[in-house]
Amino acid sequence: MTFRATVLTLYPEMFPGALGVSLAGKALERGDWSLETVQIRDFGLGRHRAVDDTPAGGGAGMVLRADVLGSAIDHAAAGGDPRPKLLMSPRGKPLTQARVRELAAGPGVVIVCGRFEGVDQRVIEARNLEEVSIGDYILSGGEPAALVLLDAVVRLLPGVMGNEDSGGEESFENGLLEHPHYTRPPEWEGRPIPEVLMSGNHGKIAKWRREQAGTLTRERRPDLLTASEWEEK
Amino acid sequence: MTFRATVLTLYPEMFPGALGVSLAGKALERGDWSLETVQIRDFGLGRHRAVDDTPAGGGAGMVLRADVLGSAIDHAAAGGDPRPKLLMSPRGKPLTQARVRELAAGPGVVIVCGRFEGVDQRVIEARNLEEVSIGDYILSGGEPAALVLLDAVVRLLPGVMGNEDSGGEESFENGLLEHPHYTRPPEWEGRPIPEVLMSGNHGKIAKWRREQAGTLTRERRPDLLTASEWEEK
Repeated sequence: MTFRATVLTLYPEMFPGALGVSLAGKALERGDWSLETVQIRDFGLGRHRAVDDTPAGGGAGMVLRADVLGSAIDHAAAGGDPRPKLLMSPRGKPLTQARVRELAAGPGVVIVCGRFEGVDQRVIEARNLEEVSIGDYILSGGEPAALVLLDAVVRLLPGVMGNEDSGGEESFENGLLEHPHYTRPPEWEGRPIPEVLMSGNHGKIAKWRREQAGTLTRERRPDLLTASEWEEK
Repeated sequence: MTFRATVLTLYPEMFPGALGVSLAGKALERGDWSLETVQIRDFGLGRHRAVDDTPAGGGAGMVLRADVLGSAIDHAAAGGDPRPKLLMSPRGKPLTQARVRELAAGPGVVIVCGRFEGVDQRVIEARNLEEVSIGDYILSGGEPAALVLLDAVVRLLPGVMGNEDSGGEESFENGLLEHPHYTRPPEWEGRPIPEVLMSGNHGKIAKWRREQAGTLTRERRPDLLTASEWEEK
């Protein structure tokens, strides 16, 4: 069964973009996943195909209309479509590798890309949209966030990941940042590769890497270390 | 002075991608910012232009070579280039709107996109690369992350943001998620716009929005609420 992604956007020309190249692009060509875009404006109102209007209660910016987006969503995901419907939004739950893995194990995703000031709350509730945030910063719209989410998901689909890219998430998954990497040459600009990595002693190497990962995580991301996780190491 | 972005990548065809469309694309055409890519493989070694090698100490995946990437960086940012040099990496410091704002106020950025298992640690140290993470998930490479970072920065450059997109970050900036938005029609699928927003009472509307933002943030992102911030509300 192929993983099906449908993206609702005012800028379908942004897709597949980076997803049409490299790993994700080859997988798309092979049919390991499919990508369809729906132009929200096709469901706009009147001669100008209006999709937005001013915020109720006043304020800056424009708000995507519930009726327009509702029609677009109903077109993209008819009743019974088993795929989760996501709305890329800085108000959403932060995306994690665990959620990426869940999505990759499912039938696909329907992704709504917001633009403007926001989306009418009623369509979020009526269509049960899951608000997902890729980080605590503001984008021009949901499209770059959708590209990121799909990239993260697609690399986990069966058959997509080659030798060139493997194992990385496991070390992230144990709750620690990854240890430093080194490769040839043994010395560069007067900087040698740490001796332990050249020792051939696999036990020592594994211990050094664990220690480095722990130190790095404590320094940079103490938030990733719950007391219990850290005590265990 | 134009904001200059230089991206070092093995996939220059991924750029400008979504950044060539909409707000960022129009700003690029107008010359409000510039985007240049550097193909890392042009600095690769030997007949096959090798850019990576196996990890010292063993393990899965391949590591980008320090010598190759060092040459590419020195080409892209000659001595005295005032731009910060970023490496998109899940090991990095999480990107925030505050850092986005700092970058947008500066002369530009040099962005290194990693691929494979990682980048030789020595080039990170020797070239003083600032590791930046856009979130706690794993991508196929740094390119989608670079697109996101540039999108966030470019929309803050002078003259880029139109009326269609304004004010959003202020409400994020006060440490709270944004309140819900509504627009016409007043009733949709039996769901009315909350009465207070139709009252015309600006004081009440502002209070309602603050309360909604507070409730939403407490429910979804208690991590954003330091005790002091929340007590003040």
